[in-house]
Amino acid sequence: MAIVAVSISPLGAGVSVGRYVAETQKVLQKYEQLKYRLDPMFTTIEGDLDVIFQAIREMQEAVFAAGAVRVSTVIKIDDRRDRSVAMDDKVQSVERYLRG
Amino acid sequence: MAIVAVSISPLGAGVSVGRYVAETQKVLQKYEQLKYRLDPMFTTIEGDLDVIFQAIREMQEAVFAAGAVRVSTVIKIDDRRDRSVAMDDKVQSVERYLRG
Amino acid sequence: MAIVAVSISPLGAGVSVGRYVAETQKVLQKYEQLKYRLDPMFTTIEGDLDVIFQAIREMQEAVFAAGAVRVSTVIKIDDRRDRSVAMDDKVQSVERYLRG
Amino acid sequence: MAIVAVSISPLGAGVSVGRYVAETQKVLQKYEQLKYRLDPMFTTIEGDLDVIFQAIREMQEAVFAAGAVRVSTVIKIDDRRDRSVAMDDKVQSVERYLRG
Repeated sequence: MAIVAVSISPLGAGVSVGRYVAETQKVLQKYEQLKYRLDPMFTTIEGDLDVIFQAIREMQEAVFAAGAVRVSTVIKIDDRRDRSVAMDDKVQSVERYLRG
Repeated sequence: MAIVAVSISPLGAGVSVGRYVAETQKVLQKYEQLKYRLDPMFTTIEGDLDVIFQAIREMQEAVFAAGAVRVSTVIKIDDRRDRSVAMDDKVQSVERYLRG
Repeated sequence: MAIVAVSISPLGAGVSVGRYVAETQKVLQKYEQLKYRLDPMFTTIEGDLDVIFQAIREMQEAVFAAGAVRVSTVIKIDDRRDRSVAMDDKVQSVERYLRG
Repeated sequence: MAIVAVSISPLGAGVSVGRYVAETQKVLQKYEQLKYRLDPMFTTIEGDLDVIFQAIREMQEAVFAAGAVRVSTVIKIDDRRDRSVAMDDKVQSVERYLRG
């Protein structure tokens, strides 16, 4: 299980790109085996890394299908094999330290 | 006003790094002029870009002060000058497209 | 054709990680259809995006195979469909503007 | 001393952005205390982190001054305090492992 943050945006398709991000979310809605949330700068996805890579490829194609000719994508992966991690666990782990 | 995602993590300080991330959050708590939220892969910050840069420098020093000798930081900035943007607006703009 | 920058590093495997980066380069040496270069902060890869994604998955596994239990990966993709782009073209395009 | 990779690109300013990247390089040319190189996906900078942050802020303003209204920036920082590191050392360290 991996946790992945991904940002996909078209270059040269106007200043506002919300319409294109929406297309990437429609792709994720079809992946029932993935958990995801739309954060302000990234979409955060939790699940099997191979499935996530497949979803990202499809998200990227969805932005081209919506009319983009150039797409800039940033991905950050946290892949941990010593124990299972979930998106919520990461935030809660930090909050435990903050409560002291 | 800019929106910035930042991830700061020590290399060679063990597999779990929640303790160090907590130190970065303590720095942000002091910046009353910044709005921020802890997402699973990044801390998302909203505010004046100069103040955010100053905060990130201080967050990075806090990780060294906590014992790290090498720190790896990833930053993604969305800086928009045609109109003011807020973290919540970005998510809501996409959700409007999804509702159609 | 896409151009991709990728950085793969283990967390909790010591302060120096050159040994692990070397394992990722050995994976790339096998991909004859990809062009790549090792830059200071990223490995830059040029080729078909599906093949690059497959290579990155294999590079990530190579770091686990070398002993890592947690791996942090950052990927930046430039995927352009209006005309073919190459790594060298991107740098030369900027240099043309600098010469004026 | 830190090593920093930075990519600054305008959104909504056309598909080709080499002209804007050139403006960021002109800023760096003025910083004699920084060493830098233009790689295909990032500009890599070596030097004092405070000076690098100042340069990045100025590079970002240069892209707005050239006409952009929205700028997307990605930064990756490697800040190491146990011993001094240089851009070339990082690549050579990996190459030593590859030669075996």
